[in-house]
Amino acid sequence: MRLRLTSFRATLVLLALASVAAAQDPLPSWNNTQPKQAILQFVKTTTDPSSPSFIPLDRRVAAFDQDGTTWVEQPIFTELVFALDRIVAMAPGHPEWKTTQPFQAILSGDRATMEKFTLGDLEAILLATHSGMPVAEFQATVRDWLSKAKDPRWHRPYTELVYQPMLELMRYLRANGFKTYIVTGGGQDFVRAYAERVYGIPPDQVIGTALKLQYGYDKGGQAVLTESPKLLMNNDGSGKAKDLYLYLGQPPAAAFGNSTGDKQMLEYTQSAPGAHLTMLVLHDDPKREYAYGPADNLPETKIGRFTDGLYNEAKSRGWTVIRMKDDWKRIFAFEK
Amino acid sequence: MRLRLTSFRATLVLLALASVAAAQDPLPSWNNTQPKQAILQFVKTTTDPSSPSFIPLDRRVAAFDQDGTTWVEQPIFTELVFALDRIVAMAPGHPEWKTTQPFQAILSGDRATMEKFTLGDLEAILLATHSGMPVAEFQATVRDWLSKAKDPRWHRPYTELVYQPMLELMRYLRANGFKTYIVTGGGQDFVRAYAERVYGIPPDQVIGTALKLQYGYDKGGQAVLTESPKLLMNNDGSGKAKDLYLYLGQPPAAAFGNSTGDKQMLEYTQSAPGAHLTMLVLHDDPKREYAYGPADNLPETKIGRFTDGLYNEAKSRGWTVIRMKDDWKRIFAFEK
Repeated sequence: MRLRLTSFRATLVLLALASVAAAQDPLPSWNNTQPKQAILQFVKTTTDPSSPSFIPLDRRVAAFDQDGTTWVEQPIFTELVFALDRIVAMAPGHPEWKTTQPFQAILSGDRATMEKFTLGDLEAILLATHSGMPVAEFQATVRDWLSKAKDPRWHRPYTELVYQPMLELMRYLRANGFKTYIVTGGGQDFVRAYAERVYGIPPDQVIGTALKLQYGYDKGGQAVLTESPKLLMNNDGSGKAKDLYLYLGQPPAAAFGNSTGDKQMLEYTQSAPGAHLTMLVLHDDPKREYAYGPADNLPETKIGRFTDGLYNEAKSRGWTVIRMKDDWKRIFAFEK
Repeated sequence: MRLRLTSFRATLVLLALASVAAAQDPLPSWNNTQPKQAILQFVKTTTDPSSPSFIPLDRRVAAFDQDGTTWVEQPIFTELVFALDRIVAMAPGHPEWKTTQPFQAILSGDRATMEKFTLGDLEAILLATHSGMPVAEFQATVRDWLSKAKDPRWHRPYTELVYQPMLELMRYLRANGFKTYIVTGGGQDFVRAYAERVYGIPPDQVIGTALKLQYGYDKGGQAVLTESPKLLMNNDGSGKAKDLYLYLGQPPAAAFGNSTGDKQMLEYTQSAPGAHLTMLVLHDDPKREYAYGPADNLPETKIGRFTDGLYNEAKSRGWTVIRMKDDWKRIFAFEK
């Protein structure tokens, strides 16, 4: 009986807190422009059992790209900064890197060569720094690096460069029964090392690029999984749609991205019956963050970008474009 | 205020139901032998916050192999029966199969050749029948087949050949905060077609062997995923440990299997810190089900089996062996 009374009291407190929260603005860092209205309308109609747009609980899944969607990806994406630092840290064990590209350029600080790195070079750097150790050791290395590294512009830990409006959106969706997933072209194990702390997203709701694993035993005969330098899933572009199906068996009801690497994830989200919310973040705020995207006249790289083509597809498919400058009142939690 | 009162009433009903359920035996189809005691003890200690064996909610994951662990896999596993039927159904569109093995043997009913099928033949059969169509269409095909096919011994739909003790175990674990996963060497999409109905397990908690997907569009420009005849993940043996890490980022706390294909999953489960429950089903009941396993003198096939080696490992690592004959009071729900 004691247990029941305690449960009732806990329920009462939770209900009271919930009604206080509902009375407040769930998205205080968003200006009251079209994207915020679209989010509020989507949540209102999809959680109302009497609405034709109602989505049952087991279909309430929201997928978030990470780099450029939930945190800063300029001037280079955080995981590559980590990888470059790791090349330097690992160099004493790899004397051959002194005379082998792309490692030689990194170790000698040859910026001219580094700026010409191809996708193949990036892959070599990521594979070399993400493999060869037990999975738990890799995640510990990531956490250690994150606790020390600071970004060159704000001089803050990279994990503080998350977008406050997106954190509010994640919390708001979760409060309304949506499961929030990170669906990133970045390394699954890299992001899992901090996703719970930074986004409140547990490891099993992080889908990312993954390496093949090797199965073995430690000296005590205990099972150990080790990352091998071979790609299993490239979770970018159509890979995001495929891997969402692989993990979930169904399309999400909502998806948020910012580049061509998110195009198929948004298309796949729209292929589900019923209501969906599909949004792209446009970086048009060089003062508070960065400006890059359609018609920015930057050279087209092979890494996903918000291109003119994506902008046109957003218009034709009815995806909502979030313009950071106009639609976000506050970008970072550390802003005044 | 109306909402709050309704919630309170619902809470009251749920609490009342929960206390009734707790007073009853949660595992009525299990005899009161060592395996049942091990399960009850595991759940009691891992859910008691004051116990040193307590497992927090986010680590309460239980992984179940399917074929031979949660349902009958003799005389041949159900998915292969499905595939053989599909070869016959698909034959009019594949005139070349009349003169190509392994299809020719199936279509002509050449049992002598079929009994000599290699793993390569099985793979060819499974790939041919599981690929080439949109994922939703494949699952519809599975559901349609399951609604009509009957097994040769009990003359019942295959989905009735699930082990009642394991259904009770799944429910009992879920009632105690464990998430239950199917982790099968069978096709992920095959099992997802019925896992919710049969086991109460949603698609995102089924991990199985998976083919590579192709991304495309239908005539209306809508995204469509199609199975291609190439293996992405072979979720058997060490694949089960790797894929558990890939999907969950951590080992489960409990795992249930019946063959060498489950060996690494159980080892991986034991590698987690804290308490675990690791169990193997031994088929020693030819009267009520089948008998096969250690020292059964059957020829060793390459498909996972409960071998002498596995039996010895179970002893040395402290895995619990469930002997169907002694430990299960009732095997099927349809038994009197």
